[in-house]
Amino acid sequence: MPLVTTYDELERRAREILPPDIFGYLATGSGVEETLATNDAAWRQFPLRPRILRDVARVDTGTTLLGTPVASPVHVAPTGYQTLAHASGEAGVAKGTADAGSLYVLSTRATASLDEVAAVAGPWWLQVYVLRDRDLSARIVERAAACGARALVLTADTPYVAAKARAANVPVGGSARFLIPELVARDDEGTWQNPSVTFDDIGWLREVSGGLPVVVKGVLRGDDARSCVEAGASALYVSNHGGRQLDGALATAFALAEVRAAVGEECEVYVDGGIRTGRDVVRALALGANAAFVGRPALWALATSGSDGVRDLLSSLHEEVDEALALCGCRSVAEVTPDLVRYP
Amino acid sequence: MPLVTTYDELERRAREILPPDIFGYLATGSGVEETLATNDAAWRQFPLRPRILRDVARVDTGTTLLGTPVASPVHVAPTGYQTLAHASGEAGVAKGTADAGSLYVLSTRATASLDEVAAVAGPWWLQVYVLRDRDLSARIVERAAACGARALVLTADTPYVAAKARAANVPVGGSARFLIPELVARDDEGTWQNPSVTFDDIGWLREVSGGLPVVVKGVLRGDDARSCVEAGASALYVSNHGGRQLDGALATAFALAEVRAAVGEECEVYVDGGIRTGRDVVRALALGANAAFVGRPALWALATSGSDGVRDLLSSLHEEVDEALALCGCRSVAEVTPDLVRYP
Amino acid sequence: MPLVTTYDELERRAREILPPDIFGYLATGSGVEETLATNDAAWRQFPLRPRILRDVARVDTGTTLLGTPVASPVHVAPTGYQTLAHASGEAGVAKGTADAGSLYVLSTRATASLDEVAAVAGPWWLQVYVLRDRDLSARIVERAAACGARALVLTADTPYVAAKARAANVPVGGSARFLIPELVARDDEGTWQNPSVTFDDIGWLREVSGGLPVVVKGVLRGDDARSCVEAGASALYVSNHGGRQLDGALATAFALAEVRAAVGEECEVYVDGGIRTGRDVVRALALGANAAFVGRPALWALATSGSDGVRDLLSSLHEEVDEALALCGCRSVAEVTPDLVRYP
Amino acid sequence: MPLVTTYDELERRAREILPPDIFGYLATGSGVEETLATNDAAWRQFPLRPRILRDVARVDTGTTLLGTPVASPVHVAPTGYQTLAHASGEAGVAKGTADAGSLYVLSTRATASLDEVAAVAGPWWLQVYVLRDRDLSARIVERAAACGARALVLTADTPYVAAKARAANVPVGGSARFLIPELVARDDEGTWQNPSVTFDDIGWLREVSGGLPVVVKGVLRGDDARSCVEAGASALYVSNHGGRQLDGALATAFALAEVRAAVGEECEVYVDGGIRTGRDVVRALALGANAAFVGRPALWALATSGSDGVRDLLSSLHEEVDEALALCGCRSVAEVTPDLVRYP
Repeated sequence: MPLVTTYDELERRAREILPPDIFGYLATGSGVEETLATNDAAWRQFPLRPRILRDVARVDTGTTLLGTPVASPVHVAPTGYQTLAHASGEAGVAKGTADAGSLYVLSTRATASLDEVAAVAGPWWLQVYVLRDRDLSARIVERAAACGARALVLTADTPYVAAKARAANVPVGGSARFLIPELVARDDEGTWQNPSVTFDDIGWLREVSGGLPVVVKGVLRGDDARSCVEAGASALYVSNHGGRQLDGALATAFALAEVRAAVGEECEVYVDGGIRTGRDVVRALALGANAAFVGRPALWALATSGSDGVRDLLSSLHEEVDEALALCGCRSVAEVTPDLVRYP
Repeated sequence: MPLVTTYDELERRAREILPPDIFGYLATGSGVEETLATNDAAWRQFPLRPRILRDVARVDTGTTLLGTPVASPVHVAPTGYQTLAHASGEAGVAKGTADAGSLYVLSTRATASLDEVAAVAGPWWLQVYVLRDRDLSARIVERAAACGARALVLTADTPYVAAKARAANVPVGGSARFLIPELVARDDEGTWQNPSVTFDDIGWLREVSGGLPVVVKGVLRGDDARSCVEAGASALYVSNHGGRQLDGALATAFALAEVRAAVGEECEVYVDGGIRTGRDVVRALALGANAAFVGRPALWALATSGSDGVRDLLSSLHEEVDEALALCGCRSVAEVTPDLVRYP
Repeated sequence: MPLVTTYDELERRAREILPPDIFGYLATGSGVEETLATNDAAWRQFPLRPRILRDVARVDTGTTLLGTPVASPVHVAPTGYQTLAHASGEAGVAKGTADAGSLYVLSTRATASLDEVAAVAGPWWLQVYVLRDRDLSARIVERAAACGARALVLTADTPYVAAKARAANVPVGGSARFLIPELVARDDEGTWQNPSVTFDDIGWLREVSGGLPVVVKGVLRGDDARSCVEAGASALYVSNHGGRQLDGALATAFALAEVRAAVGEECEVYVDGGIRTGRDVVRALALGANAAFVGRPALWALATSGSDGVRDLLSSLHEEVDEALALCGCRSVAEVTPDLVRYP
Repeated sequence: MPLVTTYDELERRAREILPPDIFGYLATGSGVEETLATNDAAWRQFPLRPRILRDVARVDTGTTLLGTPVASPVHVAPTGYQTLAHASGEAGVAKGTADAGSLYVLSTRATASLDEVAAVAGPWWLQVYVLRDRDLSARIVERAAACGARALVLTADTPYVAAKARAANVPVGGSARFLIPELVARDDEGTWQNPSVTFDDIGWLREVSGGLPVVVKGVLRGDDARSCVEAGASALYVSNHGGRQLDGALATAFALAEVRAAVGEECEVYVDGGIRTGRDVVRALALGANAAFVGRPALWALATSGSDGVRDLLSSLHEEVDEALALCGCRSVAEVTPDLVRYP
């Protein structure tokens, strides 16, 4: 019977290890951190309603994401500048994720090259912006496709970068690397954020990437979800950017059911924000998600123990999902139905 | 006018007396202890709506459980390894419970033999698992029937043992005893938990026990409640294992009315989880229970004062039920109706 | 512009002045003090919806209780053994209440004689039990009527005295006095509490008192309210005994509207429990009360400054009611309507 | 990426700088400060539902108030005695507000003359009472109109000044100045508050001011809102006086939608009370406001850095509104619709 290692304990250890400004930058939410605080608590408002007396001798946590088989429904969300947390950076997170059988979403704000990451990653997707310089965006996307990215995750909630409550400046050193060399000369805000991205860019990304599926990240409304699907999105990713963009935005647990209801079974739906345990993952599945993603937990695990820490974190979440499915009377992710949670 | 001894005080005393790892093992919930925390608080969300100006000169707290007369509607839930709390262990709890006129549910994870317990117990039931070794299960059940168990309580929420937040390993010494000698050689997890138990096993248990009624413990849903009844269960026991199995599971106070509604008056319904006072017992009755059970309170009472502590705890709860019934204008358990609580 | 003296400050001063066991006895709630804690907070769940631009140059807080004119809708609830708080005891409270133009409800558990109190009181009612010795009850009631009591307040929520969380024994000295001399020899619980009182006793009290109106105190349900009216009650007093009887009972703020709805305009309705400010009084009026009563605030005021303290407390509450009415756009108690609060 | 300066930080600085009695007077709420505490928290009960993938390259925070163009939808509420916070007083606040392109509402309880303020102000309105001496009121209003006030804001929630929880007396020195010289001799409560003001005075004010639009401040109910409009109000200002008048009054966030629903698009609606961030402003817009006002934040900014502090505060709020609009997918104030918040 293993002892639980909680998220709070993991965060505490990372806080001890990391320089305060770096911890602050990674931990901060925007504004007064309203959304950051509510993301976690929101899942707890959906208690589980377990089923009993099902034969759960064999529980399979495996599932697929856009056709890619993965070992469990919990994966790693894109977060920037992962070398801040640990020297192994993106390659470390990618490797740890692969070792655990999960999917890695590489941030465009990476501090590693596509080649380095691709060399060690299991299945991975690339998080993208549509940059002001569309040619540069196209080049990144083409290179990512060539390096084996299986999908693009378009961050749709960041036309501008929100002001932060704690350390605001990224203390990335001069030796920082970038996804592709052409990004080096462009490391300024003006490059990164393009406030004119619209639903039309979903199709554009698909096209310039040679047909990669496009996942839209940052969806919090049913009407937007429909617009994305109609514009060609292959999947929707419910997120409020971990409380780092619009402060006061709805907790993702509360947005999920609306988004699923809007698109029915037309496409896959993912979620991040405050996912801390395997039970939270099962709640997300019950509320309509196909998979859940963790951001900060992976950073704290990386800070604490590098690649192995990430692998152990995901293995532990994987085991918690396994346990939670069994204790809910479910033999697979597919058996999780909406009645498995009680609505507040 | 007696002074109230609160649960918090009882727990405080036990914490002082017991070694930290033992207290931790008995007190712990699973996961991040969400369910453990909500169980208690949930009852307080159902305020009482007392009736006045009824003649309550004679209040009878007596009732029956599956036909067995008992002095009150509050009894002792099954908990494992009771010698951890006090040398008198299961025999001590059984005796104290009998002295108070309540019913004792003996855990299969006992650290005493069936004979020892049966020698001192009043009316008692045996909590059972369907072990992987069905012959061993059958032997336990047969012996229990021979020793006078009046019913079997099938724990249905533990296909696997959940990871715990505090002390995870049972510090049972080498001299530990077991229900029947054959269990000695099998004290490993693989023996205890069988993840393939289904509704069909309700009938199997009844059969191998020579017709003992089977109570299904761990029911939290109306649909499962109906399935149990249709499979031959004699009663339902609403429980989330005191917050020690699926963390995040619904507080029992919130599951009770749904379970009662699903089965109507077809069978008896019991509940445990966060029952701390006689008023909580009356709330449970109003929400549809025939009786309520206490787990940790009995352990803390045992730790503090052995068998007498258990007797005093139950007598005190008994008196609180008596007082609460009278102050609600009820002369008996039967006069408690759903309108006696306000729904949140 | 006066500074507010809060209830918390008043309580703090009384705690400083009184011996701990006496403060404990007066402050305690029953059980785990659930109801005690929720009584206060409940009023805050009904925010006020003030009206503007009404001519409130003249605000009249005066009203009548069963025909008796009083200066405001806030009065003094019956509480026992008032000499515990201050040597002037019941006479002190009665005088202070009279000085402020409010109504005093004298407890049967008084430590003063009817004559002493009547000599200094303004309008007053007598709180009564129907004692086991009905002749004694009848004598008390007759004497009270002769001394000028204008109504009887039948406490209906105390067939037994509930166990308490803090000091449980009344530290009344041997020199304690009683309402009438015949009570001296009977100062034991067996005398006081009669668990067989029913709705029929409303009529009996009216009769033996020579026709005094009977107010039933302790009503928390609409159906009981109707039964009281049908049995001849002249008014209803919504109360949970200040959280000293059935712990877990509904906060009075939540019971008030139901009671008023059940009786319509057939009779007056009063309330106590957690009334701490003039705004709470106005909320009570909006929820259906004709008047509100304070218990512990009067005791703390008495402890702090004797009779003058009680007068000042009531005058202050009176001023707060005056201010609250004006700021709500009401010129009188009669202009307070249910839409003045927002329901949770 | 700027670091957020929170309201709490601003308040902390002001508390350090100001003498305790002055800070207390400015910070205090009335009564037990129930409303003061709920005003802030209420906005957080309306999470934002941002729209994504809109072209927000150009966000215009500009709007108009009664036809006057302003740079943003956040402005400065009337508060009295601004020299208490900083020697520059009303002129300082007016100038800082003008520098930020917002509108200033000058309090009749000013410690500066109309001329001084008008000399440095941008667009400004005058908050007025209808004084007992109507001639004096008329003279003030006439002078204000002559000095360039564009509207009158009739405070409708103060027929009397409510008792306060903290420093109650205004420590204004003998050298205090007044809006017009005639007010000097009348600095007593009897002058200021006239409890007989009614809806009819809306028309009277309009008339004596030579036709200035009248905004009614202190509206918390739909029925009152309609009465104001029917009596000739040009706009409504939802307010509970920053928790300084009727304590226990509804938080403004909860009153706003009702007021807007009552008047439809017939007139503009404003709100103050607990507005602390640009997101709160956007919430207010979604709930039906045309603009939001800040009171204490401007005082703390003034105390900390004089006129520049006020300008910086408003510029910061302006930027937050800009950011929040963009992150909500809105290019203008007009694009904020009720579906942008989730109702509790």
